[in-house]
Amino acid sequence: MDIKPVIVVHGGAWAIPDDLAESSKTGVKNAATHGFSILSDGGSSLEAVEAAVRILEDDTAFDAGHGAVLNADGDVELDAIIMDGKNLAVGAVSCIKNIAHPVTFARTIMEQTPHVMLTGSGANTFAEEMKIEKVPTEELVTLNAVKEWEQYQKYKQSVTSLFNTERTHDTVGAVAIDSKGNVSCATSTGGITNKMVGRVGDSPIIGETPKSAADHALEYMKERVHGRGGLIVISKSGEWAARFSTKRMAWASAENNILTYGLNPGEKFQEKICL
Amino acid sequence: MDIKPVIVVHGGAWAIPDDLAESSKTGVKNAATHGFSILSDGGSSLEAVEAAVRILEDDTAFDAGHGAVLNADGDVELDAIIMDGKNLAVGAVSCIKNIAHPVTFARTIMEQTPHVMLTGSGANTFAEEMKIEKVPTEELVTLNAVKEWEQYQKYKQSVTSLFNTERTHDTVGAVAIDSKGNVSCATSTGGITNKMVGRVGDSPIIGETPKSAADHALEYMKERVHGRGGLIVISKSGEWAARFSTKRMAWASAENNILTYGLNPGEKFQEKICL
Repeated sequence: MDIKPVIVVHGGAWAIPDDLAESSKTGVKNAATHGFSILSDGGSSLEAVEAAVRILEDDTAFDAGHGAVLNADGDVELDAIIMDGKNLAVGAVSCIKNIAHPVTFARTIMEQTPHVMLTGSGANTFAEEMKIEKVPTEELVTLNAVKEWEQYQKYKQSVTSLFNTERTHDTVGAVAIDSKGNVSCATSTGGITNKMVGRVGDSPIIGETPKSAADHALEYMKERVHGRGGLIVISKSGEWAARFSTKRMAWASAENNILTYGLNPGEKFQEKICL
Repeated sequence: MDIKPVIVVHGGAWAIPDDLAESSKTGVKNAATHGFSILSDGGSSLEAVEAAVRILEDDTAFDAGHGAVLNADGDVELDAIIMDGKNLAVGAVSCIKNIAHPVTFARTIMEQTPHVMLTGSGANTFAEEMKIEKVPTEELVTLNAVKEWEQYQKYKQSVTSLFNTERTHDTVGAVAIDSKGNVSCATSTGGITNKMVGRVGDSPIIGETPKSAADHALEYMKERVHGRGGLIVISKSGEWAARFSTKRMAWASAENNILTYGLNPGEKFQEKICL
């Protein structure tokens, strides 16, 4: 018997400012809907999460691909990961430049190399060999990202002073289960504004199992390091959860042709998906 | 009441050839003894694991620092991580060049930056700012590493063909608990011969909790991906284990002035530590 396909996406757990609230909601809805259409057509969860994250990477409301924040040098350095639950295959990139869709490059690394993660200039050299689409940095940079970076430079705000203040952008992510029961996930990010050149965050890193994450991750993070964050999880039977301990997180799930989404704590909207 | 300090180190889980067997054993014994002397003097587990891994990095029998294997370009790119269990602080480096003691640089990142991991040229730039000791690549390269690399080039052996054959070198690592009951760990590696430029392995990555690792990691790895490997763990009460599913792993522990060590499966030698 076929499993009911589900996809859940998020646009980052942080204190999303009001002027980004609507576009954040629209963005996750678009990504979840598109991913769900792939699942509905019998596509794999791997294809669905890659496609959903590509949409978030193209959307300048999110800190990934287009819209990524700037590092201390005013440059864009991107991290991404994709994982195929079917065989535990993983591909990841860190600290890459001039790539519009790091998640697709991560999938290429998973499928075309014997390695899990490539980083920095070595990764970019391989991207050229594999003809991964390349874009000038300017094309990834938004006016918002520049303004935020200038603010940091002006007031010499250190990254430290902003940790756990929820004023920093965050990762985007997607997790899905397809009709064959295979789970996949992907994340992509530009990291945090004014980060040191060469900094790699936790987004492209394989951590604990989803189950432990769901049970303990947020509580543990809060208890041990007073951290806040968010997560989306999906079980093998298609149960899912989107949780966050920050002020806001844009998230959306799609299943049974129903789109469920939210932004503020406790908030949950539903609408029908018309494919 | 003070806790009894313990340190456990390993030199990598792989099919260690006979001509490296003695030097591997001597190397882990030296590292465990030196780390234990620090713990016995009231030093922290963080200091002990850093010092132990530095000794393994200086020892050309191991694939870390001096003695690191060469990547596809014949270059040396190094990964390392250090973690302080007291506050869960972590520092890591990946894909860095010209650094003799990546573990010390990882500690600098943990203590002097708001970040966890720095990678590639950005990391090397920061190393220069922090006056981390720099060495020419030639100084890290051994004749053995060159021979192995030439072998790969000659027979065009791909990295893939060697995965899970145990013929590739491995990470070094140390884990310790000090008299205050704080656990720390550190790893360092040059990765695998002929790895792609920019490849990051799992050594500098924070994974599951030590407990899960001890319980499940080796079995899980074998079951899901037919992988083999090794691990060392230590509990808050000072119980420790060194396990491996490869042909050989050089390991050594030090506690109560007793050095316990081994190389082949089931093998366990003991001698008194004379500080």
